[in-house]
Amino acid sequence: MAYALASRTSRLKSSAIRELLKITQQPEVISLAGGLPAPELFPIEALQKASDTVFRTHGPTALQYGPTEGVGALRARIAATQQFRALPEQVLVTTGSQQGLFLISQIMLDPGDLVVVESPSYLGALQTFDAHQAEYLIVQSDSQGVIPESLEEVLANAPKKPKFIYLIPNHQNPSGVTIEALRRSKIVEIAERHDVIIVEDDPYGALTFSGQTPPPLRAFSDTHVVYLGSFSKVFAPSLRVAYAIPPAGLFKYMVQVKQCMDLQTGNLPQLLALETFAELDFDTHLARLRATYGHRCEAMMASLEAHFPKGSTWTHPQGGMFVWVQLDSDVNTQELLDRAVEHKVAFVPGAPFCVDGGGKNAMRLNFSNVPPATIEEGVSRLANLIKAAVAATV
Amino acid sequence: MAYALASRTSRLKSSAIRELLKITQQPEVISLAGGLPAPELFPIEALQKASDTVFRTHGPTALQYGPTEGVGALRARIAATQQFRALPEQVLVTTGSQQGLFLISQIMLDPGDLVVVESPSYLGALQTFDAHQAEYLIVQSDSQGVIPESLEEVLANAPKKPKFIYLIPNHQNPSGVTIEALRRSKIVEIAERHDVIIVEDDPYGALTFSGQTPPPLRAFSDTHVVYLGSFSKVFAPSLRVAYAIPPAGLFKYMVQVKQCMDLQTGNLPQLLALETFAELDFDTHLARLRATYGHRCEAMMASLEAHFPKGSTWTHPQGGMFVWVQLDSDVNTQELLDRAVEHKVAFVPGAPFCVDGGGKNAMRLNFSNVPPATIEEGVSRLANLIKAAVAATV
Repeated sequence: MAYALASRTSRLKSSAIRELLKITQQPEVISLAGGLPAPELFPIEALQKASDTVFRTHGPTALQYGPTEGVGALRARIAATQQFRALPEQVLVTTGSQQGLFLISQIMLDPGDLVVVESPSYLGALQTFDAHQAEYLIVQSDSQGVIPESLEEVLANAPKKPKFIYLIPNHQNPSGVTIEALRRSKIVEIAERHDVIIVEDDPYGALTFSGQTPPPLRAFSDTHVVYLGSFSKVFAPSLRVAYAIPPAGLFKYMVQVKQCMDLQTGNLPQLLALETFAELDFDTHLARLRATYGHRCEAMMASLEAHFPKGSTWTHPQGGMFVWVQLDSDVNTQELLDRAVEHKVAFVPGAPFCVDGGGKNAMRLNFSNVPPATIEEGVSRLANLIKAAVAATV
Repeated sequence: MAYALASRTSRLKSSAIRELLKITQQPEVISLAGGLPAPELFPIEALQKASDTVFRTHGPTALQYGPTEGVGALRARIAATQQFRALPEQVLVTTGSQQGLFLISQIMLDPGDLVVVESPSYLGALQTFDAHQAEYLIVQSDSQGVIPESLEEVLANAPKKPKFIYLIPNHQNPSGVTIEALRRSKIVEIAERHDVIIVEDDPYGALTFSGQTPPPLRAFSDTHVVYLGSFSKVFAPSLRVAYAIPPAGLFKYMVQVKQCMDLQTGNLPQLLALETFAELDFDTHLARLRATYGHRCEAMMASLEAHFPKGSTWTHPQGGMFVWVQLDSDVNTQELLDRAVEHKVAFVPGAPFCVDGGGKNAMRLNFSNVPPATIEEGVSRLANLIKAAVAATV
């Protein structure tokens, strides 16, 4: 049966990560693939108490329809806890940050419009921009993040004005790289001068191991930065509670599209997030997340150093969940994955993150969801498979 | 500050209902406006117990990421409880039925594509099709719902093949009208013959006062009907848990767009819906909803009969939440609304439901969220305002 689909469906593809999730849910597989928070660190007791409180004190309001913009008290809490000046009425609660990416794509992108991205960049964002038939310009990055001079060059030479620049300034997915503090104001200055909006995706800012995260890009511009924050990584993904803080001129349109998309994020998960703050010593909880992830990241660095073949390079994250590994060889990581899964270890191949055709010999490794000993075992298994693959190509 | 927006934003508008929600949340206003379930009938105790069970027995799984398609056990439960044969793998869990409408629009609609709708039809669906730059063809209805001969005529004379037909067969929003059982197979036969898909939106089917709902359109076609069901009206809107059961050939595309839109509906609300079935005598709960809404509907019929000026006509719902009233006069219900709000009573004016330019002297009244005595008072206030408006125009 053939259906007459919209032209945009030709650009649809499944997320390589979401498909992998199905394989990696098998318990015997060591998964360095997903982007899952450590389940043993979920504040489950606080969430359960918060849930009791929500049913007991908010009653039917927690279950009824509510405004599209979000629950007032949560918007106020979000506004008050940003690293930049924000008012409650600037906050739009979203159903995960993924929804924020879709909302901004809906209101900005006509088919063929340009988006500036890094290569590699977050696969779920690329998938969303693809679904809006975007075309890409690539800004260069190094170990200190996006290079301001490269952004200047890209914007100055763009064949038409890009609709926005998509960046993950803290512990980028998949690279793990953070944009250095002094570069941030320069990047915003360049974007403002060229009158191009930045979409600042910040799910990992709270997971900086040192606790010291540079100021967000949004701190430098009220007019040209859409900030996206989330509770998925600090509380739990299944709340699907995140938020967008766009420039005033974009707010109304995002609300209107959100009405079409899901009417509103449920009052129940919003109130659950709000009451979890009351039940939890948030600073202690964050400190525990940072310490654990920092320890796991160190374990991954040590394991890569110990096992990976000479010539491999990798990033050195200061937070977040991911390391990006580049193999100095002709090893195709997409092909390697099949053998890896046979040997009960999984990772995400680099190519789907790269709109420039690169990443074929790269991989993203996750350290947040695996204890140190398992990281060592997983990295060691991978190293053996890589060495075997290199030997086979010689 | 002017932003370069996508062309589709020119068709965006705010939902008249969602904007009204802000006014009607004032406690002293009698709201016959919203589409809110009766909060006193929320199965709050069962939901609270279910919530305990979810945290206790599902633990971290309830909080982690999960598959885009939905939680397996919930998909199985949904498949097993339909009025048509469905398999778990045909069920896509969505973040409210509104998301189902957006998903189908994304995969089917190019700008300028045709959608067949009734006039009046559900405002949130029209808003979504508008956001996809759809154009409309109108199928005629009477007190027995959509007229098959009219659908035949519309499809036979369409300037190009419509992408889909949007219908709410049970207790239509806003009209309250149900498509008569014998018409249903005819409608599906016509759609199949013209090879046009039907989007069957069914949030109110479980709310048939008699408990006897005619077979869904989906029962007559595996290939040409996308069925949308929801837990919003039977459990609680704030779960934002609903489902789509599309033809097999559309499933994959809907999943891919959903990945872009919000990755997945949260495991937590899905498991909450699942466990609520275990905590609740569902048949007794439904019987209570039906009896209460039936009683309120009768109260509204009696109040309209007693108070509304001669020449007004209204529908006679067999379920659901809404009555559609047509005034036999030049009263503009949009203008009437301002005076109504001053007199602390609210309704939704008819025009935003009508893509044919009609509905200017019509209104949608809600009976689910208001006790009988308040319905009488609200309808009586409205009647006085209408009489005053009629007197002013003579």
